[in-house]
Formats: sequence, structure tokens, C-alpha cells
Amino acid sequence: MRPLNSQAWKMLENIRIVLVNTTHPGNIGGVARAMKNMGLSDLCLVAPKSFPSEVAVARSSGATDLLDAARVTETLEEAVADCHLVVGTSARGRHIPWPVIDPRELAGIVSEVRPELRVAVVFGREDRGLTNEELQLCHHHVHIPANAEFSSLNLAAAVQVIAYELRMMALSAQRAEAPRWGTSWDIELAESGEVERMFEHLERTLVEVEFLDPDNPRQLMPRLRRLLLRAVPDKVEVNVLRGILTAVNKKTRS
Amino acid sequence: MRPLNSQAWKMLENIRIVLVNTTHPGNIGGVARAMKNMGLSDLCLVAPKSFPSEVAVARSSGATDLLDAARVTETLEEAVADCHLVVGTSARGRHIPWPVIDPRELAGIVSEVRPELRVAVVFGREDRGLTNEELQLCHHHVHIPANAEFSSLNLAAAVQVIAYELRMMALSAQRAEAPRWGTSWDIELAESGEVERMFEHLERTLVEVEFLDPDNPRQLMPRLRRLLLRAVPDKVEVNVLRGILTAVNKKTRS
Repeated sequence: MRPLNSQAWKMLENIRIVLVNTTHPGNIGGVARAMKNMGLSDLCLVAPKSFPSEVAVARSSGATDLLDAARVTETLEEAVADCHLVVGTSARGRHIPWPVIDPRELAGIVSEVRPELRVAVVFGREDRGLTNEELQLCHHHVHIPANAEFSSLNLAAAVQVIAYELRMMALSAQRAEAPRWGTSWDIELAESGEVERMFEHLERTLVEVEFLDPDNPRQLMPRLRRLLLRAVPDKVEVNVLRGILTAVNKKTRS
Repeated sequence: MRPLNSQAWKMLENIRIVLVNTTHPGNIGGVARAMKNMGLSDLCLVAPKSFPSEVAVARSSGATDLLDAARVTETLEEAVADCHLVVGTSARGRHIPWPVIDPRELAGIVSEVRPELRVAVVFGREDRGLTNEELQLCHHHVHIPANAEFSSLNLAAAVQVIAYELRMMALSAQRAEAPRWGTSWDIELAESGEVERMFEHLERTLVEVEFLDPDNPRQLMPRLRRLLLRAVPDKVEVNVLRGILTAVNKKTRS
């Protein structure tokens, strides 16, 4: 895939992940890893139960720079005070309905935020999520559309999904429409003439090995044409097929 | 969000998650949890290091039904033998480039698979992913577009991202649309096992006609695999290819 350009990076740099009252330090490490994998770097911890922590370092698998740089605050208000858009993650069915969006809609909204503004995405406790009071600090509530009978995601898994959507948004925001007919590797597509000469060689060889009866060819060549044309062969592949046919010719004539 | 209707459920039910040689049983538990959160249920483990495992049960947070039902196989070939579309997760930069898609494109393809066909998404080892040989069993390679400088996701996090995209697809594909993976004619697609036996026959024959040197095979078989898997052969086409190989065998041995 394409590397991110500076504008897309800037978009991801302005996103802060806030974890409220995390109980298990392993989850903080898992979150740091997921963030760094997706190109996010701003982590803020509201009153974590155990931090800094060796368990967090181990689970981060090398994202220790994010852990070292993480800010720790006493309250959620402090953590988001300098942000302009605050989004809280939420299960369904709160007392007061709030605008609920899914992670893809969140990414769409973030893509429209002016580059000088800061965005916070807030994740709650492992067992109870965010309180109603905390959710009411937020402009939007984002809900990952999980299985209603088994809806509680691991904290790092939830951050992974949101961070993935934000990265996909940043990537697509910079994508020039890529052409889609042609190989996606470094060998050119074969031209029609080369492919036809290969089919002629194939037909002669099939007659030679007595698999194709010229007086009763049935649908053999059409079937083989349909198969190979579906694959849209490149030049090297056509040459490999010609090489195989030549090897068979030599062997059967000797 | 909308609950899934029976057709969308059916789509998710036909998706198998395959984990190859997983080292840490905690990751197996995390995968089961992520799958169940997203409505997937078919888990297959290829030669896991430690399973069944109490650690897996703990990390699954209640997705023990998936762990209990998980199938364990010795080889990847067994795990995917009855599947029609096989997708391997991959980092970039393999020797032979293969068609690489992102998780959203994967979901788009899966949404077009005929409902009677089975899909496998294959995840590799925690440290080294899938081997080139394993990747060459696959029709497509899916790559999660991670930070190039820190690209290795936790196994459960990677499954979470893919499963999330598949669920989002199922949710948005509630409308009935014509499926597109599978033949649009009246012959069934070949299963992975049939195709593999054809490749084995092809390889033996290429050695016999002295086109393939077993001591220096270079990239011949991978190239032929890539070509023919791109075409997604039906049962009759595979039989035709076997017939050609048998005719060549007879002729060269006579």
C-alpha cells in the first residue's frame, strides 16, 4: 500500500486516544501497540490503576515510545480540555439517547475536521465503560456494531478497530484512483497476439499427445481459453507456458 | 444499529478463521473473543503449540463455545480443503507478488461470494506470519495497511480488524445482490483439495518432461499457481487439466 503523505500523517497526529480508569496494565500496552501499528501516537491515561507497568511494556511489543510519552491525568475533563471534537465509545441503550455513529462514520467526521483542531476518542473501563456523566462530555458516541449477545470487546481490540478506521480514512483521503486493469506487480501484461500464439502452440501439442482429436475437438479449446483468459496472464507467465509446451514437444518426439 | 438478518448471518457463518502454528494460547482465546464479538463462529487451528488451554479460555472472556467447537488439523491444506475462496494475511514484499487487497476490499469480495461456498481467512505465526508456500495456497493476500515502521499487529488484533470489516459488510449487504464469487455458469467451482491434487500432478509431469529441475525449481510452481488460482477453475476445468497431464504422461512413458 501507499505510504502516508504529510497531510494524512498530520490528520492522525491530531487524534488523541484517552483511556479512563483502565484496570489491567496489559490492556494499556495492547492499546499502545494497536495505536502505533495504525500510526497514532497521542495516548492519555485518566487515573489508570497501575501505570507505569512492566506488563504494559511487555504487551506493547516495542511501542514503548508511546507509553513513555503518555500523559496521565486525574480527570477526563483535563485529558480532553484542549480538544475540539470529543467522541466517547459506548454500548447501546443509555438513559439519554445521544447521536450514535459507527467507527466508519466517525472516520468520515474526523476527515472533515480542520487540520489545526484536535480530536479525542475516549474509551471507558474494561467492565463498565464510560459513565453517563463522562459520555455527556462528548459530541458524539461511537458504537462498534458487535454481536448483541456478546458485545463487549477487549479494550485494545476496540482501540484497534477505531484506529484502523481512522488510518483507512487517512489513506483514502490521499488516494489517487488507481487503475485496475493490468498487473499489480512489475511484469507487463501479455498482449493478445502473444496469448494467441501460445494457444496455437497449446492446440498443436494437445493433438500431438492425442488428447485433442482434430476431427472431434468438442469444447476443449474454448474451455482452456476461458480458463486462461480469465487469469489475464502476464508476459512471463505466457513464456513459461510456451516453455512447458516445448519441453513436452521434445519429450514426445524423442 | 440494525440486527443482522438471516442472509447476512449465513454469510458470516460461511467464513472460517484459520490460525497456523499459533504459539501463545492467549492469542487463540483473544481470537475467539474477537470472532464472537463480530458474529463469526468457525475457528480452525493448524498445529497449535498449546491447545486446549486454560489461558485461551481465560482470554476468550466467555467465547468458550467457539474454542470447544474449534477444529484442529495437522496441515493448512486439510484446514482449507473444503473451502472455495482462500485468503491469506500477509505483510508486504514477498518474492513473487500476488494480488494484494486491504481488509475492506476483502469484505467487498466476500460479499459477492455465492452463499453455498465457503471462505477461509488464514492467519500465520505470531513472529513470522505465513510461509511463501502457505501464501501460495491462497487466491488473494490481504494486508492490513499498518505503519511501515511498526507493522506487526497482535494476532487477535488482526483477526479483530478483518472480522470487523466482514461484519460491516454483512450489515451493509442486507440488501440482496447477485453473488459473484463462484461460476456464473452451470458447473460448480472446484474445491481447494481438488485443485491441490491437480497442482501435484502438474509438478510431477513437469519434472518428467524435464522442464522442472527438482534440485533447482526456482519460481516455476509459484508462477503457475498464481496464474491458475487467479482464474478460479471450475470442476470440469480441473478435470480437463488432469486429463491433459495424463495424456502427456502416457505419451512420454511410451
